[in-house]
Amino acid sequence: MKEFFKVKTIDQVLEYRTQFVPMETEDVPITDSMGRILAEDIHSDIDLPDFARSIMDGFAVRGASTFGASEGNPAYLAVKGTVAMGKSSNLSVGPGEALRISTGGMLPAGADSVVMVEHTGAIDDTTIEVYRSVAPGQNMVSVGEDIKRGEVILIAGRSIRPQETGLLAALGRQEVSVYKRPIVGIISTGDEIVPVRKIPGPGQIRDVNTYTLMSQVMELGAIAVPFGIVGDDYDALLAISARALEQCHLVLVSGGSSVGTRDFTIDIISAMESSAILFHGISISPGKPTILASVQNKQFWGLPGHVVSAMVVFSRIVKPFIEYIGGRGVDVRKEIRLTARLSRNLASAQGRVDFVRIQLIRKEGVNWAEPILGKSGLISTMVKADGLIEIGMNTEGLDEGTEVEVTLL
Amino acid sequence: MKEFFKVKTIDQVLEYRTQFVPMETEDVPITDSMGRILAEDIHSDIDLPDFARSIMDGFAVRGASTFGASEGNPAYLAVKGTVAMGKSSNLSVGPGEALRISTGGMLPAGADSVVMVEHTGAIDDTTIEVYRSVAPGQNMVSVGEDIKRGEVILIAGRSIRPQETGLLAALGRQEVSVYKRPIVGIISTGDEIVPVRKIPGPGQIRDVNTYTLMSQVMELGAIAVPFGIVGDDYDALLAISARALEQCHLVLVSGGSSVGTRDFTIDIISAMESSAILFHGISISPGKPTILASVQNKQFWGLPGHVVSAMVVFSRIVKPFIEYIGGRGVDVRKEIRLTARLSRNLASAQGRVDFVRIQLIRKEGVNWAEPILGKSGLISTMVKADGLIEIGMNTEGLDEGTEVEVTLL
Repeated sequence: MKEFFKVKTIDQVLEYRTQFVPMETEDVPITDSMGRILAEDIHSDIDLPDFARSIMDGFAVRGASTFGASEGNPAYLAVKGTVAMGKSSNLSVGPGEALRISTGGMLPAGADSVVMVEHTGAIDDTTIEVYRSVAPGQNMVSVGEDIKRGEVILIAGRSIRPQETGLLAALGRQEVSVYKRPIVGIISTGDEIVPVRKIPGPGQIRDVNTYTLMSQVMELGAIAVPFGIVGDDYDALLAISARALEQCHLVLVSGGSSVGTRDFTIDIISAMESSAILFHGISISPGKPTILASVQNKQFWGLPGHVVSAMVVFSRIVKPFIEYIGGRGVDVRKEIRLTARLSRNLASAQGRVDFVRIQLIRKEGVNWAEPILGKSGLISTMVKADGLIEIGMNTEGLDEGTEVEVTLL
Repeated sequence: MKEFFKVKTIDQVLEYRTQFVPMETEDVPITDSMGRILAEDIHSDIDLPDFARSIMDGFAVRGASTFGASEGNPAYLAVKGTVAMGKSSNLSVGPGEALRISTGGMLPAGADSVVMVEHTGAIDDTTIEVYRSVAPGQNMVSVGEDIKRGEVILIAGRSIRPQETGLLAALGRQEVSVYKRPIVGIISTGDEIVPVRKIPGPGQIRDVNTYTLMSQVMELGAIAVPFGIVGDDYDALLAISARALEQCHLVLVSGGSSVGTRDFTIDIISAMESSAILFHGISISPGKPTILASVQNKQFWGLPGHVVSAMVVFSRIVKPFIEYIGGRGVDVRKEIRLTARLSRNLASAQGRVDFVRIQLIRKEGVNWAEPILGKSGLISTMVKADGLIEIGMNTEGLDEGTEVEVTLL
């Protein structure tokens, strides 16, 4: 009879992340960098902008020439010409002078601000009146106001969003260094499991975990490789596990991780070279019979066979491990918490963390979390669920109205 | 002098969505369906499971055989054999009888529940004692408990998450009908804009909007096609706009949408066949000078040139239009709201909606939204921002501590 190792808490489990080596890095075009994890710090070797730019259509002036101007007492300025876009002007602006300028135009020498066209009137071709004063620096962006030369703007470990691709473009970066995507092998086990294309016979069900886990892996930006279904057959599982380990950075085996007679995962791990079981059993529900081993310095996971359990363990336990080797910084981006109020009392056992599927309901401006009950083999409960909430180890339950944090599913 | 049309509110603007025709549909393998928008309702033509399944390792029994059992007064049952996985058993369970069964095993005839192996002891090879009673239905899933034959489980318009791919697998669906991804053409305009690979001369800046908008498009699951940079040149912009419209389902032109002398977008639209300007100007800040036209029944957008304005307009205005033609149901998935408390007073002008960039800070269990100030040409402010908050039309500002809704960026 195999026994559970001493069951570990989530925090204890997550500490094992650092036993695994982050992925190598690669350069990708910035147009392919969305969602990838930055593998270099981004410094600017330029001031951005590197010239003073107008942010309005109007006239480049010296602010002092407009001081005191009003509708009743306009300032009169001599218009010396127009600033062409994308060029520096040969003309300069002295006291009482102005140059026409468009949004994005380069401020000419002598100008320190821009009067909006809406606040001016044309007297003749070379004279305007100005109805409002502008302070130096107004309606323009000064040199380095966006980014200063030498500034560190992005730290490795951040995930790249649209604005980060824009920043890289602004700095003239056509490529950027990112962590390679981890390749995750997925194996489903069980004599009762048949492929999706087959009509299940009596006692058989179709393989679901391959699809939920593949999709969860892809959602993280990693690469999912399915290795199919293996029956309750030690030799077959050993062979396919070895092959998956060879081709992948980590392997997920679902089913076979409990302590039943047909649960081979522990035996398979022990039979592989350079293997060590890091933990077997986490104090969570669902998902307790989860195994993590290090095999040839790669993660080899035994996940529960029930679809809800496997998805919950992936979302709360495996995901941080994949993010770790994927280079995502632990503290770089704070975790943003969605909260809701619990719609009814929930009981829970002490000594473990309970993850409860919930549906989010918006009522009178408040997010409510409505628990979805149902056994952990029921995929329909996950389809109804918007997220998970957590009932802590040392809690006997939560009262209706308690504020809870929601992890979206 | 071109003039703004009567400026529209966000709600008025969003009503134009229905003028455009949703995308056609296509069948994709379920492994490629993550994040796509479902284009068919999913009914089940089977009960799931279609046999009663054990959810524990133990013994299939009649619950009545165990009634009253306890540690002090166990029930004794005759073990008639073992249920093989993935098969129906020839054996049946009568009163006082049991069959060994594993998690996922098919309940044999006569059994109505499962006793967990942990609650039994072996007396000899064919007899066990049972220390706890089980009720009929306990530790098993009954026929149709997950999904009932004929049930409509998913409605067209939903986006497909990992659990939806699992559900489709469970139902034996190898392919699923989804909406095709919209193809979005992106054009940057302005004489001052140079490609990323070039070192900007005096008065020039690199193209940023192509990258931020492409990434925002990709983030939505649509396909982004860049058409490069066009100077302030009517003929060139007309030619490239026509080409983009031919190849794409919608076109985004950034820059040139204001009312300055070099803003050609309105002229270009008017020059194209079967074109109608739907609105020019939205009562929002930033982003007011936004144009939407229908050209040959396709969306043709004029977005502001400032990077922050263009991103905000995309996120709050263009995105719902792309989602609409992408088939996403308006009411199918409720919008989930992230809330935070405003960290300080914020002033705002009445008569328009202000979008304010914010950083989220977690302090003592509370999300705080810290406004990020800075002109709308500064990409660095978007890099610092985690999201946007909104100050309503009829508000002069928000007080510190006000609960605000956050749209993540």
